[in-house]
Amino acid sequence: EVKTQKGDYLVGTGKKDFDIRSIGYMDGIKDIHIVSDDYKLVSKKWKVNPTVIDLGDGVVIEEGGFQIMAGPCSIEGEDQIRKTINHLKSQGITIMRGGVYKPRSSPYAFRGLGIEGLKLWYELAKEAGMKIITEVMQVSQIAEMDPYVDIYQVGARNTQNFNLLDELGKGTDKPVMIKRGISGTIDELLSSAEYVFSGGNERLLLCERGIRTYEKATRNTMDLNAVAVLKEKTHLPVIADPSHGIGLRNHVEPIALASIMAGADGVIFESHEIPEEAYSDGQQTLNFSESNRLIDRMRKTFELRKSF
Amino acid sequence: EVKTQKGDYLVGTGKKDFDIRSIGYMDGIKDIHIVSDDYKLVSKKWKVNPTVIDLGDGVVIEEGGFQIMAGPCSIEGEDQIRKTINHLKSQGITIMRGGVYKPRSSPYAFRGLGIEGLKLWYELAKEAGMKIITEVMQVSQIAEMDPYVDIYQVGARNTQNFNLLDELGKGTDKPVMIKRGISGTIDELLSSAEYVFSGGNERLLLCERGIRTYEKATRNTMDLNAVAVLKEKTHLPVIADPSHGIGLRNHVEPIALASIMAGADGVIFESHEIPEEAYSDGQQTLNFSESNRLIDRMRKTFELRKSF
Amino acid sequence: EVKTQKGDYLVGTGKKDFDIRSIGYMDGIKDIHIVSDDYKLVSKKWKVNPTVIDLGDGVVIEEGGFQIMAGPCSIEGEDQIRKTINHLKSQGITIMRGGVYKPRSSPYAFRGLGIEGLKLWYELAKEAGMKIITEVMQVSQIAEMDPYVDIYQVGARNTQNFNLLDELGKGTDKPVMIKRGISGTIDELLSSAEYVFSGGNERLLLCERGIRTYEKATRNTMDLNAVAVLKEKTHLPVIADPSHGIGLRNHVEPIALASIMAGADGVIFESHEIPEEAYSDGQQTLNFSESNRLIDRMRKTFELRKSF
Amino acid sequence: EVKTQKGDYLVGTGKKDFDIRSIGYMDGIKDIHIVSDDYKLVSKKWKVNPTVIDLGDGVVIEEGGFQIMAGPCSIEGEDQIRKTINHLKSQGITIMRGGVYKPRSSPYAFRGLGIEGLKLWYELAKEAGMKIITEVMQVSQIAEMDPYVDIYQVGARNTQNFNLLDELGKGTDKPVMIKRGISGTIDELLSSAEYVFSGGNERLLLCERGIRTYEKATRNTMDLNAVAVLKEKTHLPVIADPSHGIGLRNHVEPIALASIMAGADGVIFESHEIPEEAYSDGQQTLNFSESNRLIDRMRKTFELRKSF
Repeated sequence: EVKTQKGDYLVGTGKKDFDIRSIGYMDGIKDIHIVSDDYKLVSKKWKVNPTVIDLGDGVVIEEGGFQIMAGPCSIEGEDQIRKTINHLKSQGITIMRGGVYKPRSSPYAFRGLGIEGLKLWYELAKEAGMKIITEVMQVSQIAEMDPYVDIYQVGARNTQNFNLLDELGKGTDKPVMIKRGISGTIDELLSSAEYVFSGGNERLLLCERGIRTYEKATRNTMDLNAVAVLKEKTHLPVIADPSHGIGLRNHVEPIALASIMAGADGVIFESHEIPEEAYSDGQQTLNFSESNRLIDRMRKTFELRKSF
Repeated sequence: EVKTQKGDYLVGTGKKDFDIRSIGYMDGIKDIHIVSDDYKLVSKKWKVNPTVIDLGDGVVIEEGGFQIMAGPCSIEGEDQIRKTINHLKSQGITIMRGGVYKPRSSPYAFRGLGIEGLKLWYELAKEAGMKIITEVMQVSQIAEMDPYVDIYQVGARNTQNFNLLDELGKGTDKPVMIKRGISGTIDELLSSAEYVFSGGNERLLLCERGIRTYEKATRNTMDLNAVAVLKEKTHLPVIADPSHGIGLRNHVEPIALASIMAGADGVIFESHEIPEEAYSDGQQTLNFSESNRLIDRMRKTFELRKSF
Repeated sequence: EVKTQKGDYLVGTGKKDFDIRSIGYMDGIKDIHIVSDDYKLVSKKWKVNPTVIDLGDGVVIEEGGFQIMAGPCSIEGEDQIRKTINHLKSQGITIMRGGVYKPRSSPYAFRGLGIEGLKLWYELAKEAGMKIITEVMQVSQIAEMDPYVDIYQVGARNTQNFNLLDELGKGTDKPVMIKRGISGTIDELLSSAEYVFSGGNERLLLCERGIRTYEKATRNTMDLNAVAVLKEKTHLPVIADPSHGIGLRNHVEPIALASIMAGADGVIFESHEIPEEAYSDGQQTLNFSESNRLIDRMRKTFELRKSF
Repeated sequence: EVKTQKGDYLVGTGKKDFDIRSIGYMDGIKDIHIVSDDYKLVSKKWKVNPTVIDLGDGVVIEEGGFQIMAGPCSIEGEDQIRKTINHLKSQGITIMRGGVYKPRSSPYAFRGLGIEGLKLWYELAKEAGMKIITEVMQVSQIAEMDPYVDIYQVGARNTQNFNLLDELGKGTDKPVMIKRGISGTIDELLSSAEYVFSGGNERLLLCERGIRTYEKATRNTMDLNAVAVLKEKTHLPVIADPSHGIGLRNHVEPIALASIMAGADGVIFESHEIPEEAYSDGQQTLNFSESNRLIDRMRKTFELRKSF
């Protein structure tokens, strides 16, 4: 039996065929479905209505709407946070991204400001009415981070960190955005979401951020097919990350706009006052004037899609 | 020295450093460039102005315009051709796709109607003012096909068939659309174009049609990053093929629209009166009413992009 | 109906179920099988006994034996040919590899000595009792090359050049070695072999030469799993090409020896008197003394495998 | 400054050029190197002598030796443990593998017996003189597992779980075997090792277990190129896992033997009394008689390699 924020589910995974009517007629059973995928609760076969993620203060992520999340790769300090908040507010953006724990492939690279950075960011964001999305890397960080986070991000290197997923299902009721693995399949992403959902936390978002292929002209290969397929398979909102998806600043805009046409319910991208001086990911980060142009064009693109 | 449709080029590939001024001041030299990529003539470093492909009768493929090519995977017979032409004309489409030579991985599958099919198609297309794009598979077909073809297509299995590329450079002045290889890199696609261009034929188009990756939920992985990167690197028009790019009928539309936002100068897709009865590729082919909707939405999407 | 060098086969590819006894009892039918793969004639389900390729003069490629083919990437001239032949003869090698038509991704690279180079090589090889394996790139080369070739090689860029495969099935009775495509699946390789076999030429070899993956530390990723799987699925001999499989001279030996343990019936590798001066592929080519050591160790490794 | 089991290192990662002599002449500096890779301490440029992993009781993993680790995918209970130990002892194997924490992509699959299973296993292994290698999935398990583990295994989904790597560097002095990521590069594997090494734990092994590619005929694509390249780049022992590398029981043997020829210092594989009844991975697990044959042939293959 699985208890989540919205209901109690009884999930069967029997190996034998059985007559579902023998369960369906039992007392206390409201409804019963047979779902043959490895993921059940996150499937549209299970739940037809799209999941709505309400962050409070009127900030909602849902199918039919379009949310933009932007900000730096790494949180660097008070001045940077203030400038980013001002930039985002001027564009009507209400969700700010940024990393305080950074997964770095080399042990000698900058690893983020940690919990103190998050607290500082939270103070400034709160007074500005800005919501926070940030990466969590391990179970022990959850309790500490929980008061200061609006959406947890699970990074591409942790998509199959099953202990972390378990704990995000059981140990918090904050929304979680799961990024597709570096070379994760669409099915694996849905199974990872199933971990969190079946743990009890229904407030999930999925994120396409490019996959690893043989092509080296771009950092990753943005798989917009996956956006279209996910929108068919799951009731969860799907977010696109064009910054990591292509990894080249001057091509972030076309890929962001393309993501919207492919069906994304939101876009997350990296922006920084002076990308050349950013602590990380500068080569794929937009400056504020590029960011402004992108936001305007994304909204127009979404309006067109909505009209179809 | 390389002679093409628009000029005579002298391409140097020396291994030693030299002073380009010693060549630039020679009599008869109009201009000189140093291009360090493996592809030179197709690079924007060489030629800044976009290449315009004029098929006559006002049918033009070029940056800043948007061309749609549609039709069945395989040409099947007179009735099918007529119905397709009528469908396309009703939508204002002037370029029809279709295969008469089909590359099939099994020797036991349908291999196309061949040259007789092409002649029949040509008669019907000519009287309707419709241009023809069709695949050429080997050198010996070129002479035979040449009177009946408006654009040669080089398929994904022939992107590195260098003899075929050579002959398309030297043996015809008809335009050639080169599809990216099954797992071809962006640079390899440009090098293949260089074969044709350096052979003397400047009328080239490039086509992104999805690449092979580990993901099996879709037939291929449409790489829209490649569209954005190609638009930066080359002066040749870039076409997107969403039918092969995702391979699933109900997702062709979002990927087609996404391709336009990524920067494509045109889209080629598969349509058939009754896809379920098509000789090949039925699972990714639109019926005429789906096709009508897609064409309308693609034009609106292009108009939006143009307004940016 | 399919006629090959060893028999007449009737291959059915019906879509309806039928009772095979209704065919089996017909006059003139010797035996009947049901094979559900796309490849039938090359499957072990069809023919249990391993195919033996007899090149004459006692040179045989077959399961249970072990053949070595070596020589330069490109044939460069008389002196190089003589030195290579002397080197190979001193090691008891009787099959020499070398390219006279070279597929090159850039049109500005060396493309081989062509048919004149082949004739020269043939004269020298014949007087030394050396067999020749060399790449054929297009249909029109077959008639010209046929008198001078002992084994045709189909390169990794032509594995799905179906016209070439057709013609190698119908237009020659010389053996053909088909390399796996740049990113070809095992099933596609078998289907390509089926093209040649069903065209009438049963004398086929398959070659694993590494596939394209995201890993860039090596030129390709040698897939020795494929060697093991092919030995299970087909009755055709399987050859390994460690030179292209890893692409780094100092690692050719371990990968060659590993290929034997994985089950290869032969190894083809690149050797040159002075690899640093080779016209192509020098970085993966062994010099003669490295070659001698490798040959000795391969034979010992094969002896051990045979003892199992 | 980095303190490990064998010494104190000062690792510089400055961005400016500097004269290494200005450091080298300082008091207390024994030696100084410049290493330009992302991984430094695990590189052969830093430490030429191969790392030796001594587990006590004469059980050593090192270059020039050959260690076999075998056992079930999952620890299932006392009876299974006893039978496996007896089987291994009869073959002279002294390291047993098995999982008590299982990473499973579906939340509904068997997740292992946990710490109680490990304690039981430890009791039985200790009395038999058998060493234990088992997977650790998260930081919080380390303290608990530490008394019962001889080698920690970091699984392919945790290769870039940097918090886990950090803690294995600082929180234990037990050896750690890091598996290559599902689609991890060779360089990323070395950088992950650098995390542990720079944290203070020098007792590391690396493991090639197959990578994710487009080929689906096998579970993964065993990359034996990586074994050869790793043996060149690092002083750490390299282990091959043919069970996961190919994922098909009847092909584990050839790939295991091939791994040895490619240069592996050891092989880890899955064996079970009745693979068909194993809780997990039965399709790639050998029964005891297959296991016996493999062990015998691996030792003979290693002897041959050693003789070269």
